[in-house]
Amino acid sequence: MFKVGIVGDGYTAAELLRLLAGHDELEPVCILSTDNVGKRIDDIYPQLTGFSSLTCEESKIENIIGRCDAVFLALPHGLSVTMAMELLPAGIKCVDLGADFRLKDAALYEKYYEKVHEAPEMLKEAVYGLPELYREQVKKTDLVANPGCFPTSAILPLAPLLGAGIVEPAGIVIDSKSGVTGAGRTAKASNHFCEVNEGIKAYGVGTHRHGPEIAQELSFAAGSQVEMIFTPHLVPMNRGILTTTYARLCSGAKAEQVREVLEGKYGKEDFIRVLPDGRIPHTKWVYGSNLVDIGIYADDASGRVVLISAIDNLTKGASGQAIQNLNLMLGIAEDKGLKFPGVHP
Amino acid sequence: MFKVGIVGDGYTAAELLRLLAGHDELEPVCILSTDNVGKRIDDIYPQLTGFSSLTCEESKIENIIGRCDAVFLALPHGLSVTMAMELLPAGIKCVDLGADFRLKDAALYEKYYEKVHEAPEMLKEAVYGLPELYREQVKKTDLVANPGCFPTSAILPLAPLLGAGIVEPAGIVIDSKSGVTGAGRTAKASNHFCEVNEGIKAYGVGTHRHGPEIAQELSFAAGSQVEMIFTPHLVPMNRGILTTTYARLCSGAKAEQVREVLEGKYGKEDFIRVLPDGRIPHTKWVYGSNLVDIGIYADDASGRVVLISAIDNLTKGASGQAIQNLNLMLGIAEDKGLKFPGVHP
Amino acid sequence: MFKVGIVGDGYTAAELLRLLAGHDELEPVCILSTDNVGKRIDDIYPQLTGFSSLTCEESKIENIIGRCDAVFLALPHGLSVTMAMELLPAGIKCVDLGADFRLKDAALYEKYYEKVHEAPEMLKEAVYGLPELYREQVKKTDLVANPGCFPTSAILPLAPLLGAGIVEPAGIVIDSKSGVTGAGRTAKASNHFCEVNEGIKAYGVGTHRHGPEIAQELSFAAGSQVEMIFTPHLVPMNRGILTTTYARLCSGAKAEQVREVLEGKYGKEDFIRVLPDGRIPHTKWVYGSNLVDIGIYADDASGRVVLISAIDNLTKGASGQAIQNLNLMLGIAEDKGLKFPGVHP
Amino acid sequence: MFKVGIVGDGYTAAELLRLLAGHDELEPVCILSTDNVGKRIDDIYPQLTGFSSLTCEESKIENIIGRCDAVFLALPHGLSVTMAMELLPAGIKCVDLGADFRLKDAALYEKYYEKVHEAPEMLKEAVYGLPELYREQVKKTDLVANPGCFPTSAILPLAPLLGAGIVEPAGIVIDSKSGVTGAGRTAKASNHFCEVNEGIKAYGVGTHRHGPEIAQELSFAAGSQVEMIFTPHLVPMNRGILTTTYARLCSGAKAEQVREVLEGKYGKEDFIRVLPDGRIPHTKWVYGSNLVDIGIYADDASGRVVLISAIDNLTKGASGQAIQNLNLMLGIAEDKGLKFPGVHP
Repeated sequence: MFKVGIVGDGYTAAELLRLLAGHDELEPVCILSTDNVGKRIDDIYPQLTGFSSLTCEESKIENIIGRCDAVFLALPHGLSVTMAMELLPAGIKCVDLGADFRLKDAALYEKYYEKVHEAPEMLKEAVYGLPELYREQVKKTDLVANPGCFPTSAILPLAPLLGAGIVEPAGIVIDSKSGVTGAGRTAKASNHFCEVNEGIKAYGVGTHRHGPEIAQELSFAAGSQVEMIFTPHLVPMNRGILTTTYARLCSGAKAEQVREVLEGKYGKEDFIRVLPDGRIPHTKWVYGSNLVDIGIYADDASGRVVLISAIDNLTKGASGQAIQNLNLMLGIAEDKGLKFPGVHP
Repeated sequence: MFKVGIVGDGYTAAELLRLLAGHDELEPVCILSTDNVGKRIDDIYPQLTGFSSLTCEESKIENIIGRCDAVFLALPHGLSVTMAMELLPAGIKCVDLGADFRLKDAALYEKYYEKVHEAPEMLKEAVYGLPELYREQVKKTDLVANPGCFPTSAILPLAPLLGAGIVEPAGIVIDSKSGVTGAGRTAKASNHFCEVNEGIKAYGVGTHRHGPEIAQELSFAAGSQVEMIFTPHLVPMNRGILTTTYARLCSGAKAEQVREVLEGKYGKEDFIRVLPDGRIPHTKWVYGSNLVDIGIYADDASGRVVLISAIDNLTKGASGQAIQNLNLMLGIAEDKGLKFPGVHP
Repeated sequence: MFKVGIVGDGYTAAELLRLLAGHDELEPVCILSTDNVGKRIDDIYPQLTGFSSLTCEESKIENIIGRCDAVFLALPHGLSVTMAMELLPAGIKCVDLGADFRLKDAALYEKYYEKVHEAPEMLKEAVYGLPELYREQVKKTDLVANPGCFPTSAILPLAPLLGAGIVEPAGIVIDSKSGVTGAGRTAKASNHFCEVNEGIKAYGVGTHRHGPEIAQELSFAAGSQVEMIFTPHLVPMNRGILTTTYARLCSGAKAEQVREVLEGKYGKEDFIRVLPDGRIPHTKWVYGSNLVDIGIYADDASGRVVLISAIDNLTKGASGQAIQNLNLMLGIAEDKGLKFPGVHP
Repeated sequence: MFKVGIVGDGYTAAELLRLLAGHDELEPVCILSTDNVGKRIDDIYPQLTGFSSLTCEESKIENIIGRCDAVFLALPHGLSVTMAMELLPAGIKCVDLGADFRLKDAALYEKYYEKVHEAPEMLKEAVYGLPELYREQVKKTDLVANPGCFPTSAILPLAPLLGAGIVEPAGIVIDSKSGVTGAGRTAKASNHFCEVNEGIKAYGVGTHRHGPEIAQELSFAAGSQVEMIFTPHLVPMNRGILTTTYARLCSGAKAEQVREVLEGKYGKEDFIRVLPDGRIPHTKWVYGSNLVDIGIYADDASGRVVLISAIDNLTKGASGQAIQNLNLMLGIAEDKGLKFPGVHP
């Protein structure tokens, strides 16, 4: 039994506790907070009543060191770096659910997050925690940058195709649709029920922070700079991301290769289901689960490839993937605590 | 490992398979269907892909006998009786998720379900499967009538108070609000998305079939005929029932006794959470779980008691409770496969 | 063409502007704000682009006097009194959409709104603006207290029955279900999309401020103090209130009289539709309209009466009714600008 | 006052009646049906109670001729042709809300609608009813092919840019998100509330019938065959389409020209609002209205253009546009009966 801490008390923290309630090798021993110190976590999240009796403690290093083998940093960007700088030397493994270690280029981080990175040398060390792409690196590292929710949904279907040279690394369009939990728990006009319900909008057009993160990973996969555009949309639902990706077959590539490459790459993965021809993902099929569903449309005549991927943004897009990473880092079975289907209907 | 069959392929069958995917002592070995014979269940319910590879078989006794230790009958009313009549003598335990064995009075069954009961003598034998009220009987029976979803939510908070003589057995108002899965999977005008979304309605006012079921159990609890009215409402959500029950303190009873009685009765139950003063249930807190949340308002001045209870209609209101019952019938730990919190947010 | 001002910039203000866009005898000439002074109203509410080009002005009397014939006060409680005290002497008619003039008893106001009423003598003067009950008084007054949304839905079906002595003035249960716009535009944890969506809860059990308002009007109708309980619920939808009212036939009264009384009272009303037997209101049928739908269930055997009423809380429950009142006060046709059906589906 | 008939009783028929209730120069005198002959329309659509007392009549020509000046054909594809063939010679103007006259190429119609067109010679005669593009032709014709909902949202923002040679006619991606009313009123598994709510999916990937319709009109605008792909998605909401269109600036074109062209083209239109920089459409802003909102993102560095357009699929995407067309055909003011803002929140 490993002891783990959670730093932060937002939706991803609540999701960690939900998932850890069914994990018999990770025991959450503390939760750290800024706003809710002294409050029981099940008073903040009554759904956890009977499953976690932790009380929020002050967000400082001393509340972790000596008590935890590993921590989940579930913090707004900019706050994980200093924490990780102290935790790692103390031998505590870190999974950062925030954005601080995702971009390898500190200048890009500064541009998109409007903040100078405090420890750019750590960016090399951190492993981008997509186990399906970086499993061996995750196993060996003490610092995982848990991917963003949109990037998880966008990178998984596309990276193997770019890597195999099947689709062109230019002209890619990534159109994502997300539930509202992705915007976090803080009450804002933009997540007021009445401003979201019974409507849909795009946001962050051309400027969303997950754009460079996706581009980085797709470029790594392609072995060259990828040209792409990413647009997120807000859908009136709590959970789920559906990403529709438009790409083109490379000259000489065949539509059928798309399926071959994806099934070859992911056929034995626990959490990725490449759906059969004609089946198109619905986010509800992965609701509350750590699964990724990928649907494929590819057409030789037009050379068009459309990939549709579905995840639960709080699970595979955040807390589930974080546990998957920590399982690997600690030598636990990768699917421990995560092997269950989506809640549907 | 016990082998279980599922008869029926509607939403409660899908929910059984979702829950059984996490149950290590019950193995679903067959699923029987009328409309989908020969189809894989994960083609019908793609969320189950990777978790169940069963193919629907014809709905006949021979497909069960010799293969199953127990069955879940998840059928429209009227179809379980003949099945149970053959399965029980073959030594197969039955949990009926339908309405055929819930009412003890065959005449009432005939009135509300417009069908002569084919085996009224079995009504005495069947145990009404609310484990929190009838645990010992459930353990000993081979035939459980799994309660209706509304009755589960209405009976649990009120029965102990009637039993203790704290609230009056007359003038009770039970106002329930349900998600749409309660109406089943068949496409009808009344469950068309556009007819349900962004609105609320009452239905079955004064005539709903769960009325007599609730009255029966409340009357058993009270030891006398209870006078009550029950009204269901349809809420634009998939899962969840919130039941608001209005009753009156008996002369001489004190408001504080309401909490005392309920906490005394349910304090050690795995699946019932009597919420502290001032906390009012939200159905999302029990979403996808087998939990029941009960909130209490009681006021000495007016003598009014308001009980608010929340369940997931597909889980505690149907398939979760069915597994809880079968666990008891087979001597398995009662909470096996069911011990997890709700999916929220 | 009368010139009107709007004081406040919340959802009811936006709804006033939506409705006034189709009203050819009332011209909105100014909108007053606290937080958004200098902002165009169609920047705050882009749906109004092309329909209102007003810019928010500071919330002070001088911005109204000399420019307006009448004002709508769409303010949080406690702020309308001083405004009305200055506007009325200046000959400006006031419709207060807030709670300041609804309760006739200043002590009750103080208890429920935690504020000493600054002009209790005005309470007598103000007319409770339910035109279907107080039409002649509305026509003659300069100060209308526009009813609360829940009270509008609860009083209309019940008042005539109490007035006619058909139903008992005790033991009444009023169970209301509201959309989220009723909670206003300010972002709060309780109206965060993810806390509301896909779930339902009760709130303000036993303590909601609309309770005494309903009791006041029902008691006026009955001619004696009514004993009742009111419980609101929050439904995952933007607009709409469905109120389910439980009462009992008086001894000697017949079920059929319920319909007779309601049809007699409301048969010629523009905005009330008493639905035929067996038709139960759905809030979507009145969505965006000034209509009230009333469904009736009454049963001689049990003596039970269930009334189900549906309104749009922002229209008949607030801004539509406010315009209906001002139409009457200014001698305009009562239905001017309000005669359109609900937006469904 | 012109007399109009409605053939069909689905959601677009209901929407026509809703809109015509506020139109003082068009009087609906009959509604024809297949399934509901003899039923009152306000029994089918209770929201219309008090606004239309028509009774559904049999769907045959004799029920129209001699009674109507014009008809709206709101029928499944394939059924309008024979009706129009008889109505036009009788001097009755026709607006077809179905797909029978939209495609100019009968072979394309046959391919996508799996039906030989019965009167291909009429395809030339019919005017594609996008008034903002074909106003003068609409005024002069007796037969309008009312555009599909997705095409309306996709063509309006893009056609002027293609016409002006600002964006490239190849590599266009059109990603649309629609509410569920677009799928019609017939109850199907795919529009069951529980299969749609709290999730999102793509459908008809690469094969949707609105693809060739969009391509046809964009090609007319460009003056050459456009290469594009169109993917619709189903969003858990009743009304609204948001279309996100991805294109590229032509070599030599500047990002700022996108706005210049669109504002130049649509600046004086009643129903099109080109939103200012940084404002991105939300479908709720046009809910229930005939408006089109267009948001622009264009970037010189990448050459990317993203256009976001929002309509109400039942109004501007169907019945509102049909009335707009008929207004033009009959010499009525184009905005008659349609000049109101969206219902938000």
